[in-house]
Order: sequence, then C-alpha cells, then structure tokens
Amino acid sequence: MSILLPAGYRAGAAACGLKRTGDADVALIVSGGPASAAGVFTTNRVQAAPIGVTKRHLRAGNARAIVANAGNANACTGARGRADATETAEVAARCMGIRRKDVLVASTGIIGHYLPMDRLRDGVTAAAAALSSDGLEAAARAIMTTDTRPKLAEATAGGGARVVGLAKGAGMIAPEMATMLGFILTDAACDRGFLSAALTRAVRASFNRVSVDGCRSTNDTVLLLANGAAGGPLVVPGTPEAEAVQDGIDSVCVSLARQIVEDGEGATKVVTVRVRGAANDREARAAARAIVDSVLLRAALNAADPNWGRVMAAVGVSGIALDPNAVDVWLGGQKLCERGAPGPGDLSRAAEALRARDVEIVVDLSRGSAECVFLTNDLSTEYVRLNAEYPT
Amino acid sequence: MSILLPAGYRAGAAACGLKRTGDADVALIVSGGPASAAGVFTTNRVQAAPIGVTKRHLRAGNARAIVANAGNANACTGARGRADATETAEVAARCMGIRRKDVLVASTGIIGHYLPMDRLRDGVTAAAAALSSDGLEAAARAIMTTDTRPKLAEATAGGGARVVGLAKGAGMIAPEMATMLGFILTDAACDRGFLSAALTRAVRASFNRVSVDGCRSTNDTVLLLANGAAGGPLVVPGTPEAEAVQDGIDSVCVSLARQIVEDGEGATKVVTVRVRGAANDREARAAARAIVDSVLLRAALNAADPNWGRVMAAVGVSGIALDPNAVDVWLGGQKLCERGAPGPGDLSRAAEALRARDVEIVVDLSRGSAECVFLTNDLSTEYVRLNAEYPT
Repeated sequence: MSILLPAGYRAGAAACGLKRTGDADVALIVSGGPASAAGVFTTNRVQAAPIGVTKRHLRAGNARAIVANAGNANACTGARGRADATETAEVAARCMGIRRKDVLVASTGIIGHYLPMDRLRDGVTAAAAALSSDGLEAAARAIMTTDTRPKLAEATAGGGARVVGLAKGAGMIAPEMATMLGFILTDAACDRGFLSAALTRAVRASFNRVSVDGCRSTNDTVLLLANGAAGGPLVVPGTPEAEAVQDGIDSVCVSLARQIVEDGEGATKVVTVRVRGAANDREARAAARAIVDSVLLRAALNAADPNWGRVMAAVGVSGIALDPNAVDVWLGGQKLCERGAPGPGDLSRAAEALRARDVEIVVDLSRGSAECVFLTNDLSTEYVRLNAEYPT
Repeated sequence: MSILLPAGYRAGAAACGLKRTGDADVALIVSGGPASAAGVFTTNRVQAAPIGVTKRHLRAGNARAIVANAGNANACTGARGRADATETAEVAARCMGIRRKDVLVASTGIIGHYLPMDRLRDGVTAAAAALSSDGLEAAARAIMTTDTRPKLAEATAGGGARVVGLAKGAGMIAPEMATMLGFILTDAACDRGFLSAALTRAVRASFNRVSVDGCRSTNDTVLLLANGAAGGPLVVPGTPEAEAVQDGIDSVCVSLARQIVEDGEGATKVVTVRVRGAANDREARAAARAIVDSVLLRAALNAADPNWGRVMAAVGVSGIALDPNAVDVWLGGQKLCERGAPGPGDLSRAAEALRARDVEIVVDLSRGSAECVFLTNDLSTEYVRLNAEYPT
C-alpha cells in the first residue's frame, strides 16, 4: 500500500556515490506552486552548514523545494561547507527554474567531511530529472542512513486536503530538537504563522518525545510545506479547519517518530515510558528523560530482564526532589516496586511480558498529577556493532 | 607483589551464597583501636539502606570497622532493608566485641531484593573468624561484582605512615558522587575535620573524574579510616604532615579510579578526555562530561575510529555557549578538527594511535584557560552483553 504525495508535489531521487552501497543518496521534493513553509532544528550548538542556509531561506516563510542528501552531513565543514550547501540549493533551483532562496537544504551522514560537489551536482540534476508524483518512497529511501526501511506516514487534513511525511532515523536520536530529518507536506493552504506554530506543537508531542541514544545530532531538521493545491480556503488559527490540519500534522509526526524508534539502530523492542504523578510537566519530562537515557536499563530490556532497580536508580538522578519511598514502578504490567520497595507484582510474569516487541514501563512519583510519555528502545550488541563500524 | 594493610588493621572475607558463583561475598575490615572516619556517598536520591545506616554511624566522626557485601545492594528495600543493614552492623560488632555504631556498612549488587539475613549472619561471622593482617586482597575480592580483578593501591603518608585502598567497579559508574565502593585506610593519626576535607578533595580529583556508563548508582560509598597506629602525632590541616597524608590519599584514590575505568564492563581501552581553553572550571567539566557520556563516541572508539565529529556533536550539547568555529579537536595526537572544520591531522595515523590501549582526546574550546581531565573507556558489545545478562 504505497502512499501518494499530496496534490501539487513531485519527488525524485538519484544515486551519486555518497553512499558506498551505490543506493540513492539525493532526494528532491518540489511543489508546483508556492508553499508556505516552517522548520524546526537541532538545539545542538554545533549545527551543520545546511541548517544555516535553510534557516536563512525560511525567513520569508515560504519555499518551493527541499533538496536532501544522505551519506555526508556537511557538518563541521566551515566556510567551504556553507558555500557547498548554498551551491546545492542553487543547482536544485536551476534544474527546476525557481529561485535559490525557495530551496531548503538538509544533509545527514558522517560529520567532518566536505561534500564531493562534483558528484552531488550530478546527483541533484539526476534527481530533478526523476521528479514524479509517485516519487515519495524513492525520496524516503534516498535519505536513509542506518535505517533499515523508509519511514512514511499520511493523514487527512480536512476539506479534502492531506498531510504526508517522510523521515529518517535511526541513531543519534534524542529529544530537545527535531531529532533527524523529517519532511512534512500538505496540500492545505496555510497561513504562515499558523504553520510555524502547528509544526512546533506537533514536534513537541512526537519527535521531542523519543530517544534512541540520547545523542543530539548536528543536522536534525523537520520541515513543513503547505502549498494549498487541494483547493481549500486559507487555514487560519482558531478555526475547525485549523484543527483538522493540526490533527493531520500531529498524526503524521507521531507516526514517523514511532517508526524511528521501531527502526532504532539494533533495536529489538519499542519501550513506552509513562511517568505519572509528577508535580508538574517539567518534572514528568525530567523523570522520563532520565529513564530513557539509562543505558543500563536499556541493556536489561534487551534481555527482557524486569530490572526495576535500574528504573529507580535512573529516576533518582533526574534532579527531582523526590521521596524514593513514595515511588511505584510497573514493568510489563506488574507492580514490581511499591513505595520504593519490592511490590506485589510477579517477576516472572513481568519477564514474560518484557519478551514482547512492545513493552511498557510505568512510574508513579506520587507527587501530583502531571504526566509524560516517552518512547525509546532497547540497547543491543547490534547498536554497538553498527556504531563501532560506521566509518569515518 | 601483594599490598599489606596499614598498621593496626585486619581484614577477612567469607562466602555465604550471595554470589551464585560461590565466591567470597562478605568483607570485613577492622582497626585494632579507634579510628577517625569520613565518608562520601552517591548523590542519587534513591540511596541504598546501608548508606543511611553508615551516615548515621559516621556522625561522631569515628569508626572501628567496615562490613561490606557483594551480590545484593540492599537498595529499594524499605524499612526491612534498613533493619537488615542495622542488623548486619550489629552482627559484625558482636563478633568483634565493639559497639554497633562503630561499624560502617556497605552493599553492592542487584537492586530491589531483600538481603538473605540468615546467610549473611553466617557470612559476617565467618569473615570475622578469618580476620588477619594479610587479608586485604581477600576483602578486595569479596566486594567484586562484574569486576574481573581486585583493585588495590598503596602510598606513603609521611612519618612512616601509609595509605592503602581497595575498591570495586565496574559498571554503573558516573561522577557526581563516590562512584562505587572504595575503602581507604591509613595508619596516620588524623584530625576528624581534616580527614573529611581530605577525602572530599581526593574524591573530587579521582572518582568524580571517571565515567563508565554515566549511570549513578544507589550504593556508591567511599570510606576513609585513620587509626594512628603508625605512631605519629595528630595530623592537623595546614601542616607539611597534612600535605603528606593528603598526597597519599590522593594517590590511592587516583589509582583506584583509574583501575575502575581499566576494568570497566567490557572495556578494551582507557580514554583520557582533556578539555582545555574553557572559560571556567564548570565549563571545562561540562564539556568533558558531555564527551564521556556520548555512547556514540564510545562505540566509535571501540573500533579505533577517529570520529571527531562525534566529539564535536557531544561538545555542542554540553550547555556551553561556545562558538563551534573556535573549537580544535585532537584524536590520538592528530589535530583532526581546527576551528570547527577538518584540520591538518592525518586520519589514518589517528586511527593507528586509537588502536592502543591508552588513548587521548584533547578539545580546546578557545574560550579561556580552565582545564578538566576525565577518564572513560570504550563501549563494547561485551558491555551490553554483561548488562543484558546480569540477572534480576
């Protein structure tokens, strides 16, 4: 069941040798007419060259195209990297007969290597020649790095409009930013201010609630284009139409974020961490972050070990002034910790439940009513192998 | 070359079935006469029962004995755990004819299980029967968990006095606290205030400068006893004698901390991370922490991959308002990053240097003159295997 691009968009991909496998490594997405546009970027102080260029091109609040490459992050590449990112936009613009500042640029891959521009120029040109209304999956495949499968999602957005997204994971995934490359496209017509607020809201509840390894990348970028090709009226905030579009964007972002965790490097499980009973949202989030950042706990989950002590140890360093003797912990539906001590739950039933692909950890801090849900996965020997062998 | 206990101390060990291997799992250390005593403990909010008991027993600033067990952390065990820790001290005190409040207690092992007190009582009694002036190594072996070897160190402390230490690692190692079990013994006679300050200073530059997996344990404890059996005068702060004792304590703590990193779970390398050019100590420390906490970087080091981009990505999330275009990075002696972009260093020579057991990462932030040195190790598939299989 393949997903179609929203009305008015075309996508294409090409291989130009940035991936040693010979797979497609350049993706191009273009809207037939002008689109309003918004972006969310990594909060890492070290930001890749394309992020600077894309932020500048987004200033006017609209764009026509996205050009992205995998295999080279164009990060930590100084002035030459900035010139290369600008030229990449320029080459794409020329191919499509649009202005350079209407092209957004994104890169993912190894840090600290200059882009081989001779090859990339050819790649962008070939991707432009391959543009088609059914090129979505090819584009999603082209931006993959250690991902084992393309990540795509779709939703309706009211009034016949649709939202479609593509993304790549799969390592260096942490919240506090966009957390990877994600491109969201809608054929709804959206007010620029609405679009920016909608993206921020959607990212907060999706990409900022997942963690694979706690490592924030230099290249994380989520872009949202809205070209109005579905023919509806301009969507403005505070209307039922706006709600429908927001729901569509939320749904696509949540699906893509989950797919990233499912396909996390070496992952064998998707772990939902639900912290409740926090005094406030900040606390709930801090506790959830501490749990998903524990490599010890994530290693235990790989072996379906109901090691609730590692949950407690993680919560204890979350910076919350908690009373450990008030904390309850459930693993695999079993209450293994009650008021900070061994609970009535059954360890072997918990271990049984943790053997599933989807597992849940629930922590009740007994301090209030705030909640936070985070997704992560287990830490496997395969993660280490992948990241030890990912070559410089 | 075995290390002798300082004058006036005896140690013993016994096996009581807390370790499934049948190896010794109870250690007892006792001073023939009263000793001044100090302790440093985990900053985790979730603290094991023995920590509460030991803090209480330390209030008077002196102690006669330390009783420690491996195989069970007695953490997250509520009121029963507190009673068990108190009883452990009581049993040890009775065996040695001293007061309960002169016995310090420490535990390490699995969290969330009650101590099997029937067995532990026998174990403590057997360890007391085994006390001898050459029991140091046996005690160091008894506190091991996933450690592959005992950790011992010695130093002179001026005026014929000595300092000897024993410690156990090897996972759940992070700074901001004592970071494992470490017992430091000296036969110098030390003023109680001096002793406490000396331990804090020594820990800051040793156990608080190493990280294996960034996980702060519930049980970390470093204890320091000074019994004066070497016969020298009481050491008070601000004297050359105090300096000699401090140097001895520092030296023993630094050696033990390094041994813990060397024997870190699954480690194949010791990595020295040297951050310089920071605006102040806090910044230097934050940058060093961010680097040693990067599982991505530590996985790359396992494969001797000179992936300096992962150093930059880590520094970028350290919370420092740094200018990435001013940062230099050396890996294996090669300047691979200069002013945030690829530097003149040679990648293959860096890779060659990273194949050694001892490797160095140097980062210059170009913001000032503060420095910080941290030790960590690489992340191997063996670490994951060990922690996935460590049973609940």
